[in-house]
This record gives sequence, C-alpha cells and structure tokens, in this order.
Amino acid sequence: MIKVGIIGAGRIGRVHSESITKYVKRAEVKAISDVKITDELINWAKEMGIPNIYEDYKKILQDPEIDAVLVCSSTNTHALISIEAARAGKHVFCEKPVDADINKIKEVLHEVEKAGVKFQVGFNRRFDHNFKAIKTRVENGDIGEPHLIRITSRDPDAPPIEYVKVSGGMFFDMTIHDFDMVRYLSGSEVVEVYAAGGVLVNPEIGKAGDIDTAVITLKLANGAIAVIDNSRKAVYGYDQRAEVFGSKGAVQTKNDADSTAVYSCEIGVIAEKPKYFFLERYMQSFADEMSCFIDAIINDKPTLVNGNDGLQPVVIALAAKRSLDEGRPVKLSEIV
Amino acid sequence: MIKVGIIGAGRIGRVHSESITKYVKRAEVKAISDVKITDELINWAKEMGIPNIYEDYKKILQDPEIDAVLVCSSTNTHALISIEAARAGKHVFCEKPVDADINKIKEVLHEVEKAGVKFQVGFNRRFDHNFKAIKTRVENGDIGEPHLIRITSRDPDAPPIEYVKVSGGMFFDMTIHDFDMVRYLSGSEVVEVYAAGGVLVNPEIGKAGDIDTAVITLKLANGAIAVIDNSRKAVYGYDQRAEVFGSKGAVQTKNDADSTAVYSCEIGVIAEKPKYFFLERYMQSFADEMSCFIDAIINDKPTLVNGNDGLQPVVIALAAKRSLDEGRPVKLSEIV
Amino acid sequence: MIKVGIIGAGRIGRVHSESITKYVKRAEVKAISDVKITDELINWAKEMGIPNIYEDYKKILQDPEIDAVLVCSSTNTHALISIEAARAGKHVFCEKPVDADINKIKEVLHEVEKAGVKFQVGFNRRFDHNFKAIKTRVENGDIGEPHLIRITSRDPDAPPIEYVKVSGGMFFDMTIHDFDMVRYLSGSEVVEVYAAGGVLVNPEIGKAGDIDTAVITLKLANGAIAVIDNSRKAVYGYDQRAEVFGSKGAVQTKNDADSTAVYSCEIGVIAEKPKYFFLERYMQSFADEMSCFIDAIINDKPTLVNGNDGLQPVVIALAAKRSLDEGRPVKLSEIV
Amino acid sequence: MIKVGIIGAGRIGRVHSESITKYVKRAEVKAISDVKITDELINWAKEMGIPNIYEDYKKILQDPEIDAVLVCSSTNTHALISIEAARAGKHVFCEKPVDADINKIKEVLHEVEKAGVKFQVGFNRRFDHNFKAIKTRVENGDIGEPHLIRITSRDPDAPPIEYVKVSGGMFFDMTIHDFDMVRYLSGSEVVEVYAAGGVLVNPEIGKAGDIDTAVITLKLANGAIAVIDNSRKAVYGYDQRAEVFGSKGAVQTKNDADSTAVYSCEIGVIAEKPKYFFLERYMQSFADEMSCFIDAIINDKPTLVNGNDGLQPVVIALAAKRSLDEGRPVKLSEIV
Repeated sequence: MIKVGIIGAGRIGRVHSESITKYVKRAEVKAISDVKITDELINWAKEMGIPNIYEDYKKILQDPEIDAVLVCSSTNTHALISIEAARAGKHVFCEKPVDADINKIKEVLHEVEKAGVKFQVGFNRRFDHNFKAIKTRVENGDIGEPHLIRITSRDPDAPPIEYVKVSGGMFFDMTIHDFDMVRYLSGSEVVEVYAAGGVLVNPEIGKAGDIDTAVITLKLANGAIAVIDNSRKAVYGYDQRAEVFGSKGAVQTKNDADSTAVYSCEIGVIAEKPKYFFLERYMQSFADEMSCFIDAIINDKPTLVNGNDGLQPVVIALAAKRSLDEGRPVKLSEIV
Repeated sequence: MIKVGIIGAGRIGRVHSESITKYVKRAEVKAISDVKITDELINWAKEMGIPNIYEDYKKILQDPEIDAVLVCSSTNTHALISIEAARAGKHVFCEKPVDADINKIKEVLHEVEKAGVKFQVGFNRRFDHNFKAIKTRVENGDIGEPHLIRITSRDPDAPPIEYVKVSGGMFFDMTIHDFDMVRYLSGSEVVEVYAAGGVLVNPEIGKAGDIDTAVITLKLANGAIAVIDNSRKAVYGYDQRAEVFGSKGAVQTKNDADSTAVYSCEIGVIAEKPKYFFLERYMQSFADEMSCFIDAIINDKPTLVNGNDGLQPVVIALAAKRSLDEGRPVKLSEIV
Repeated sequence: MIKVGIIGAGRIGRVHSESITKYVKRAEVKAISDVKITDELINWAKEMGIPNIYEDYKKILQDPEIDAVLVCSSTNTHALISIEAARAGKHVFCEKPVDADINKIKEVLHEVEKAGVKFQVGFNRRFDHNFKAIKTRVENGDIGEPHLIRITSRDPDAPPIEYVKVSGGMFFDMTIHDFDMVRYLSGSEVVEVYAAGGVLVNPEIGKAGDIDTAVITLKLANGAIAVIDNSRKAVYGYDQRAEVFGSKGAVQTKNDADSTAVYSCEIGVIAEKPKYFFLERYMQSFADEMSCFIDAIINDKPTLVNGNDGLQPVVIALAAKRSLDEGRPVKLSEIV
Repeated sequence: MIKVGIIGAGRIGRVHSESITKYVKRAEVKAISDVKITDELINWAKEMGIPNIYEDYKKILQDPEIDAVLVCSSTNTHALISIEAARAGKHVFCEKPVDADINKIKEVLHEVEKAGVKFQVGFNRRFDHNFKAIKTRVENGDIGEPHLIRITSRDPDAPPIEYVKVSGGMFFDMTIHDFDMVRYLSGSEVVEVYAAGGVLVNPEIGKAGDIDTAVITLKLANGAIAVIDNSRKAVYGYDQRAEVFGSKGAVQTKNDADSTAVYSCEIGVIAEKPKYFFLERYMQSFADEMSCFIDAIINDKPTLVNGNDGLQPVVIALAAKRSLDEGRPVKLSEIV
C-alpha cells in the first residue's frame, strides 16, 4: 500500500485525493497540507478519511511512512517542493507547469534523477480516452507517417483578470497542455514555433498583458506540421478536439457530452453541448494518471509523463511567447 | 431517341418531365396530356420544350411515334390507362399504386405481358442513394442473413382532409412505399402483417375514417421480421430512415439535409433539419428511376420495379388495413 | 451511515458493492452472503473492506446493525428473501425481475408496505445518462404528446444454452428492461402487447424453447404506440438506443463508445463500436441507482423504481409470451 | 436567352457547358473553342447540342450574337483572353486564377470596367451548399464577431508531376480556393500571411520546386485569425471542411458523402468516405455559379465573385509563397 501526501488542498489536490480513494486500489492518502486550513477543509478531509492535515508541507516530507508526494501547490512553488521531496526520498507527482524557468526545471530533473525517485508531471490529457485513441492509431501505424496535427482547445470562459495577471499568460496556463499533446500525438519533438495571437474576447485581458485567442504553428523534427487554435471563451462550452493526419489516413476526436441524446424539433436537430470544463471533461484522465503514477512506483516502471515531458512544453511556451512578441517564427534552439 | 408521352401534368408528371429533359440523354418528351389545360401549363410546357399538349390522353396513345407512356394521372385511372397504353404497344411507366384492387392490378400485368411491353412502377425510393447503399450492403452479404428490418417514415405534415378522404388511407398513399422498401431491402416476401394504428395528429383524420400514426410488423418468408413506424406529421421535417440488421452486422441510414453545417451555441450543437418533403428529398431518385426505365426500353432489359413489385405492396396494404380493422395479425394468403 | 448487507456475491452483487464503496458516501457494505464461499470471494471481500462473509443469508437479516439489504441472489429466491428482509425491518433493493409469478410479486409488495420499509427494483437503465436525457425532454414537454416510442435492445452475444433454459425466456431476462423503459419514457401504462419472434441466431435456443429475435408492439393507455426490437446477438456489440416521437418533436439516443475517435482511411470513416455489454455500458447507472436507494432511506423519500415498477414489466412479459404463443395481440387485462 | 461561348473544352469548360444546358434556363451554349479539335470533342459537342466548334477562340469573340464568354483555357491565357473578350463587349466569366501576375490582373479589371461588362471569377466554392450555410450563419450574426477561421482542404491524390511543374505551385492551383474562402467566410481582408510547408507526400514534388503539405496562418483586418491546412493526398478522399468560430458560437461543416449509410460490424461503425474529388463534390456549386453569372447579365446585377475577388487570393498566394521561401510572416502590403 503506497502512502501518499498531498501538498496543496485546492481544486486539483482534492481531485487527486478523490481519485486515489475511489480508483487506485494500492494507494491511500495519509496526509494533506495547505497554507490555509479552514473548517471546510477539515470537514472535507474527514469525509475523505485522510488522517492528517498540516499547515506546513514539510511535515509531509518528514513523515517516513509517506512514499509519494503530489505537488499541487501554487505554480511558483512546484520546483522547490519537488526538489525537497526528491531529496527526502519521496516519489514526486508534480502539477503542470513544473516552472516557467527552464533552469529551475532542469534542476528539478537533476535532483529527481540523483534521488532515484519516480517523477511524473500532471499532463492528464495523455490519459484521456479520446486522445489515447488517437495515440493508439498513430502507434499502430494506422495513420502512416504523420503529416499534420491539429488541436482545437478552447475554454468555456476566460479566467478572472486577477488570475490572468499571475498565470504567466495563456501559453503557460492553457496552451501548455496542447504543446504536450502535440509531442504526445506526433511522437516527435518541436523545432520551431510561430504564434499569431490577439485580444478578441476581453480587452481587460489585453490590458493585463496577455492574449485570449491564438493560432500556433509548430514544425516538428519528423517534418510534420502541427497547428493549435485557442480561445479563452467558447460560449458553447469546452472545445477539446484533435486530429492526426498522415500518409495512411487520419484520426480525429469529437467532444464528449453528457449524453448522446439528439432532439429534433422545428429549429433543427440539436445535440448536447460539450461537457462544460476540465473537471467534467477530464475526470477519468485524472484518475488514470494517478493509477499510472502509483503503478510506476509499485512495479518500478517508468512514469508515462517524465521529466523531459515536463520540460519541453515550457520550452515551447517560451518560444511561442517570443514569437508572439517579435512577430516571427522562433526556433527552440534559440530558447534552450 | 425514345419519345415519351406523359399522361397527367400534375406535380409528379412534371417531375418526370424535368428529369427526362435534364438527365436522360436518350429520351425526350413529345407530348403531355391533362384533363385541364391552363395557361400556366401551356407556358410550362413551352419552357420545357414539349411540343404537344392534349386534353385527351388518347391522342398520346394514338401517336405512333411515341414509344413510352408515363401514367401520372389520378390513381383511379392508373389501371385503365396502363392497359390501354399496353394494348397500344407503348411501354408503360405507372405511378404507384397501380390500383387498390388486386384483380385490376393482375389484369394490368396480364395485358402488359401479352403486349410484350416494358412495365415499371413508380417506387422511386429504390433508386435513392441511401436506400441503395443499404441494398448494396445486403446483396454483398455484409449483413449476413437479415434478421430485422426497421423503417421510419414520417411526413412533415398531414395532407388536406379532402385528400385523406379519397387517398385510400395512409397505408395506400404513404406506407405503400415502406411496404415496397421492406421487400426491396430484405429480398424476401411478406407473409403476415400486424398493424397498430391511431389518430394522434389530427382528429379530423379519424373522422375521415383514416389513421395518422402506425406501427406495422411484417413477418417475412425468410424468417426476418420487419417493422415500420409512420406518422403523418413530424414537426422537424420528412423523416426517412431505414436499417437492416443481420447475422454479420447492420446498416442504417440517416436523413439528408441541405448542408452538413453544425452550429454550436449556448443552447446546443444544432444540425440542419431533414430536407422538407419528398420533392426535396427524393429528386435524384425520380431522375434515376426514369433513366432506368428508358434504359430498359433501349437495351431490352427488365425494369427494376416490375409488375409483381407493383402488386405486392397493395396486397400488404390490404392486409394491414384488415389487421387494423380486426385487431389481429393477417396472413397475406387471406388477401390474395 | 447506512449499513448494507448484500445477498448474493455474483456479478451484480459485486457491482453494487463496488458502487457503494466508491460512489455512495453515506453507505457502507457490512456483510455479504453467498451459497458458495470460495477463496476468491474471501479475497475480493477483503480487498473491498467488507468485514463479514456468510454462507447463510439469514445472518444478514438477523444483524440489527444492517439497515438495508440488496437481493442479488438467483431470480427464484428474490421474492422469498425480499419478504423475509422486509419482515426483518430491512429496506430492500431487489434485482429484476422480482419474480415471474405475479401473485408472488404482489405478496412482496404487500409485505414491504406492511413493514413500512423502502423497496427499489433494479431497473438500472432509468439512471442511465442517455435514457434520462430522453426522459427529461419528455417531462419538459419538448416532445409534446408522445406518439411513438422506439427501443432497440440487442445483446452482443447470446447467453449459454444452460442459462436460456432457466432464465424464463428472452422476454423475462432481457426484454424486461425494455418493457420498463417503455413505461418510464412514455409516462403511460401498457394496455396491449403483440409479439413477433423467431429463432434466427442459434437453433439451440429454439430447441430450449425460447426465441432470440423479436419485435414487440405495445399499445399504451395514452394512445401512443411503442415498439421494441430485440436480438440476442449483434456482432458489433451492445446496441441500446431509444427514441420518443411526439407532437412537438423527437428525441433519440445513440450508443456510447469508448472514445469519440473516428478513423478515416481507404475503406471508410470508422467510428468505434458500442461499449461491449452491460457492465461496460451501464456502470454509471448501477452507481446512481444505488445512490438513489440510499438517499431514499436517509431522507425518507420514495424510491425512483417502486413496487409497481417491479410488477408491471412482468405483467407485460407474460402478455408478450402469450402473444407469441398464440399469435395474437394480448391485453394486459387478460393477464392480471 | 443569353448566348454563351466557351473558350477551352477541357474538363472545366465541359462542366460549365453541361451546367448551362441542364440548369440555367435563360442561357444556351452557342459555340465552344479549343486549340485541339478531336473527334471525341465533336461528338461531345453534338450530344450537348452546341452548334459551333472553333479552333480559333477569336471566332467566338467576333460572333455578335454571343453575349458572354467563359474563359476556360490554360491559366496563362486567362488574362489576355479576358481582356480581348471585354474589349469585344462580351461579359466575362474567367476561371481561377485570373493570372499569377498582379499587374496583369489589374489590367483585366481595368479593361472590364472600361468595357462595362460583367466579370465573374470561378471561385465556385462560394456557391457550395455547405460553405454557404456557414456564410449565412456569419451574416445572420449567429457567430457574433469572428475570431477564428479554420479550413481543411486536402486533395485525394497529388496531380501529375508535369502539372506540378507548370501549375505555379500548390498555393496557386489548390490553396487559392482556400484563400478565397477565408475572405468569403470572414467578410474581412487578409493583412499578413505565414506559411509553413513541407514535402511529405512525394519527394518528386519537392524536386519540381513545390510543396505538398502546408499550414498557412492569416491575420485579418478585423483581428480574426485564419488557418488553412493542406495536403496533396488524403487517402480517404477529398477533405473539404471549414469552421468559423466567434463571440456567439461556431459553425462547422463536414464532408459530403455518397450516402448517409453507416455499417456496423465487427471492426467498427463505418460511414462512407467523402465524395472523391471536386467534380463529385462541387458539381452543384458549378451549376449555381453559372446561374449567378447569367442572372447578373440578365438582371444587370453585380456578380457574386467580382474582379477584386479574383485579385486578392493571388496577392495572398504571392505572400504565402514569399513567406514559405523566407521563413517569416509576410504582410500583403509588401506584395501589392
């Protein structure tokens, strides 16, 4: 039985806690920490059967019974806590992005390797049933050589301006998943990025120094070309589609909805909107990434989202940001 | 060049005329007749390039240059005119139903055979791209042995009550196409019919002695079971779907729409309604049945909807009517 | 915390056990019984954290701490154990069908009422996301008056002949769910049934006195007509679709698949097959029916599948069987 | 009755001829010319009822009875013949692209304006039912402000290398339609282009100096961003999809297929491939663009694809070519 400590009791920390409790047979949550312990948190932890709640995450690192740590704290602490956890001999699951600073990420990877612990990054979409179905077709050779990768990733609504100001920008908090998906689906590395972006959803986002709409073109090492389109606000809900096109065919996914019901009436033939947002849409993938992490620990297998998988999307995001700022394609070799 | 005379210049007579002019290379319309010749009809014929218009259809039968006759007059004259045309040595295309009286249909078939002319009945849906795609799968053996045949056939709106009073009833003017389709798709003959029906759309239809909603179950000679559901009024448009299910798989068709456009908005993901009614939906099949008829004449081939194909759906309709009236399954052997 | 005892540790008993453990916050499984206790069962129960395993189900009924009993034993014991459980003051969740004998079911309902305990029958499909979406449209009035209800229900493969011999027949072990669904979706009662059936999948099923293919027409009290088509074997997987058509529109559901991925290649545009069978397809509904049952106990609310909902489908199944045997429509008033 | 002369009796010249004969009531083809008159052409013209065939297209220009000329000759003669036709007082329908040289196009537009004749360019896709359905949604305001335009345009197979060598390159012979579609669907002008391209389908295409795969990003004057993905070879057929996403929703189109039939079997749920290529896919649009042109002449209305619509896509194509060559975004103001 793997004993897990969760650092950060926000939304994603709780999602992982519930996943472990419900779906991951050989793991249990022994402790959770948060910088702010409220009655609500105490009640929640009690209901979840988590025996320990700490204000200081270091108590989790110091507990010799705890095998693995989930780093679900605020982004700017991911790298530091991951390093401390690795040094404490804990296996580390780190939420994305590991950091916005490449050197810090490299330091994390170095420490993890030195400590010989497992390290997995929270790119949960790799575990999503739809994206996995694409990946399987690609790996089976059904697509032949990949030529084009297309990802549509649109949120149902823009985050609060306060969040926009500190998130590091759309490429870091939103497109980062799509950058990972391009690498995952293509099985190749990005070599050059061109980002076209604008402020079309909300001018406040522009005032905060960010964009809300973008089309990003990525050239891959295998010659394929990927393109991502992003919007902070799709009024019909969370739009999460992907396609890989190659020499032998193409595979594409549609959105998931709450039901397959279709209503035919005088105004048309109406299907349901996509599931609203990431908690509704990706819950199964959160559970499966956790199972994968625990399985990697128990059976000493590599994790499916390793340190380099944590690093590369950040490099791509930096290149995309520079491309947007300078109005030109940027090679990844300029960044690293 | 096959010279055609059209008897009856109503909607369907004009549809066939336009099909021949536009799509059927080796035929031309030499004359059209109608019991009532209006200025509008004269103008239409002129625009279509039809040289002769008659009030008396017999002038068409007497024209030695005319090879083939399309019987598009009112239903109660189909049999008589078909017989006269056959006796005049004309090939006959007869709109459905040939007649509501089995003996009259048999007389037509007898005369046609005696005259050695081609005879085709206007079951145009056999030429529809969707139903043909099902038929092809069945004939190729992709379905294996057919077990279940399902047909949904719903009109966008009920006909005027005056029409209901004279049409012979829903089974004769509407379901007759579905009865034909069951035979066509299954490749088997109907042996027993059970009809459940009701008046749910418009009580006036009930007062006129007819029904507007029905589910008809048909047992086939090959053991398969078919089921048809009908409504006189689907507010979302003309609903024309079919499915054949068998030992190796199933094939089903959806409705056709004016475009594939799908609109995602706050209320849902909205596709277009089905094409409105039979003229919009089945225009291609009207053209193709005409090509088939002309081809049968030119190349002396059997027509694809022969005399027996005209007879059987009427027998089934009579059995369905009796089933509805008596509240029990009726064998076709009771009718013929 | 509601303490639950499960009688019968077969597939469905275990499904409910896992549902309670994972999804139902205010319930826990205190004991499980089975006529045959194997090492495998002991290990499974240990892993599930179930503290007690009995060979004799009466120990569950005698445990004063147990609030509710799930009757998951073989069908012929459902009625007896439900009665004993009710007399012991336990709330009862009984798997379907309660019994094949109407009088026995009535006795169960009588005893349950006398004991004042909750009683829910295992028609899990009422909790399925797709069927619920239809129900919501019907209840909202989006369909207007229902005219036609269509249910397609086809299994991916026929059960073993040994099972066929004791199951009570296709109408009792398979169509029973569809009979329930007709009542649920239409909001009306069945008054007459006509069943056409055959042995098309496997002649051994015929030799065992059953059928494997059927079309059943049901007339409802509100005038609507329902039709169910069944097959024991759809080679492409579990086919579970429904449609309600009415004066204002129609709503229909498609099958669920493991992913939305569509593969375009030289042979066509290939979507995934439906989820394989009921465990894959209906797992969410099993969890939700259990939540509903526990919720009814805790908050003293009516269950959503009550005693009459357990009785009516059996009456319909008996009518369908008589219809098949006698080749005529059968009124439910002939049965009860 | 508008009398039409067709210059160039290749595939597209014949398509227009058939469209006029079948669908355009108030026009007729009086003459056709081709640099090479074969027996096959003579027979075809006879069957079509075209009375005159010339080797020298100038005879068409000199015929005072001819009102309108369709320029369907080889691309390098489009501009010259258009100018001559305009000077001869003929209305001009010119196949795309008008020319690869912007100055020549401008000269054509100048001459056309001077002559006061109608001028329409052969961007037939504007008349396609699917693209028109998108346009209608955009114009109705259902999409709100457009933010993203996505076009997928993939051919079923690469053209012969001999064609590639003279076509002017993929952007000029294939993407030109997509450039037009971006302008049409967005209702805005392109201001900057970035093209990423590669040779992934056939190395011979690269040796001929062209590419076969591309992703082109276009910034529009209204702030929206468009993206086109192209491939010379989609093994599953002609892939022609588009999407406009905006502040109030999105509209997207799927491919057309020969039927809606879906075959469910052991390997999956198989729909038909897209219609094979442009003749199959866009026949309706060819007919409708011709009706539009004739209608503009008869009723003295503006054509729906005017001179500037012929010019702009060429400017965009030139910018795309420069972008590809120089590896940077190119403003249209650099080209014109």
